[in-house]
Amino acid sequence: MQYPNGRKSSAFTKLNHTGQTVYSNRGMSLEDDINDTNQYYLTHDIAIIHKKPTPVQIVHVDYPKRSAAVIKEAYFKQASTTDYNGLYKGEHIDFEAKETKNKQSFPLSNIHQHQIDHMKQIVHHGGICFLLIRFSLSQETFLFPAEMLFSYWEQQNNGGRKSIRYETVKKRGYIIPIRYQAKVDYLAVIDQYYMENGGTKNGR
Amino acid sequence: MQYPNGRKSSAFTKLNHTGQTVYSNRGMSLEDDINDTNQYYLTHDIAIIHKKPTPVQIVHVDYPKRSAAVIKEAYFKQASTTDYNGLYKGEHIDFEAKETKNKQSFPLSNIHQHQIDHMKQIVHHGGICFLLIRFSLSQETFLFPAEMLFSYWEQQNNGGRKSIRYETVKKRGYIIPIRYQAKVDYLAVIDQYYMENGGTKNGR
Repeated sequence: MQYPNGRKSSAFTKLNHTGQTVYSNRGMSLEDDINDTNQYYLTHDIAIIHKKPTPVQIVHVDYPKRSAAVIKEAYFKQASTTDYNGLYKGEHIDFEAKETKNKQSFPLSNIHQHQIDHMKQIVHHGGICFLLIRFSLSQETFLFPAEMLFSYWEQQNNGGRKSIRYETVKKRGYIIPIRYQAKVDYLAVIDQYYMENGGTKNGR
Repeated sequence: MQYPNGRKSSAFTKLNHTGQTVYSNRGMSLEDDINDTNQYYLTHDIAIIHKKPTPVQIVHVDYPKRSAAVIKEAYFKQASTTDYNGLYKGEHIDFEAKETKNKQSFPLSNIHQHQIDHMKQIVHHGGICFLLIRFSLSQETFLFPAEMLFSYWEQQNNGGRKSIRYETVKKRGYIIPIRYQAKVDYLAVIDQYYMENGGTKNGR
C-alpha cells in the first residue's frame, strides 16, 4: 500500500506546513518520525492513524493521451482540520504536530484558530485530541492535551503571552518515549494518560 | 473556515476518482451531497466528518517572489484509505462513497483491495465502517455495511460475480433518506443500524 508518508510527499507537506524544508540535513523531522510510527502501529495492528494528504487547490490539469493526468497549476491550501487522525482501541484519535527551533517556548503562531475550533469539536464529541510539540534543538517531543492548549489559546486571545513556556510544556505535557521502531510512541502516553486515569477526555 | 468540499476542489476530487467530472450537468454528485451533508452535521454540532484531501504527488514547485508557491507539476495518487472519516457520538466513522450509472448492479471494480484492507482494519479496531452506494439513474443512495461488502469481495476473489446486484444492495443495505438540509442523511441510518441494535459493529 502507498501511504502519504512516502518521503517525497512528506517533504512537500513539510514544506507546506513550514514554508521551508527544515532539518532535511539533520535527520528525521517530526513528521517523518510520526509517519514511521504510524506505519509501525499499522503493520503491528496497534492503531490505524494516517496523515491527511496536503490540501491542494487544483487550477489546471492536462490530460495527455496514453498517460496520466498532469496537474499543471495548483496551490497549497490551508488545512481546515488537524493533520492526523485515526482509530485506536475503539477511540477516535485526532492531533496536530508542530516542531519549533525555539529553546524557551512554543510559539502559538504555529497553530491556527480554525485548528483550535476543530480540536474543540473533537473533544466535545468524545475524541482524544492533542498536540505533539517537538523542541528541535533538544529533540524532545511532548504530548500536550488539547484541553490544556485551549486555555493558553484563550489567554493569548485575551492579550496574554503568545507562546507556551518550555517549562510549562514539560510540566503540563507528557514527554514521549523515543523507541527504535515507534520513534515517537505517543500511544504509550495515550494509554497512560487517557485510557488509565481518564485524563481530561470529554465524558470520561 | 475553508473545507475541502469547496466546489472547485470537489470537482477535481471527483475527477480524480472517476477520471471524469460526471453528472456536472445533471445536478449534484454524490460527493457534493455528502460534503453538504457533512457541512450541515458540522454546523449543527451533530458530527465532525470531513472528506480527506485528494492525495497528490508533487514533483515541482515554483516559489515566485512576493507570491504564493505554485505547484507546476503534480500527479493524482491513489488514496491509501477511504475518502471520509470522522467522529460521531464518540464513535469513529469511516466510509467510502461510490456512484454507478449501472441499473442492475454495483461493480466491485469501483473498490480497490487496499481500501478493503483499510476497512477491515477499521472494523477490527471498533470503528463504524461502510460504503455509500448511489445508483445515479434512480438517484437512490444506500448505506452498505463494510462487513457485508467484505463477503462479496471475497466471493469475487474466489471467482464469483464481480458486482453486487441492485436487489442485494436494496435488500441487505439501508436506503438513505433524502432531506432538504442533510441531502444524504447517512447518520440517520447509523443511529438506527449501529447505535440501536449494535448492528455488526465489531465488539458490539
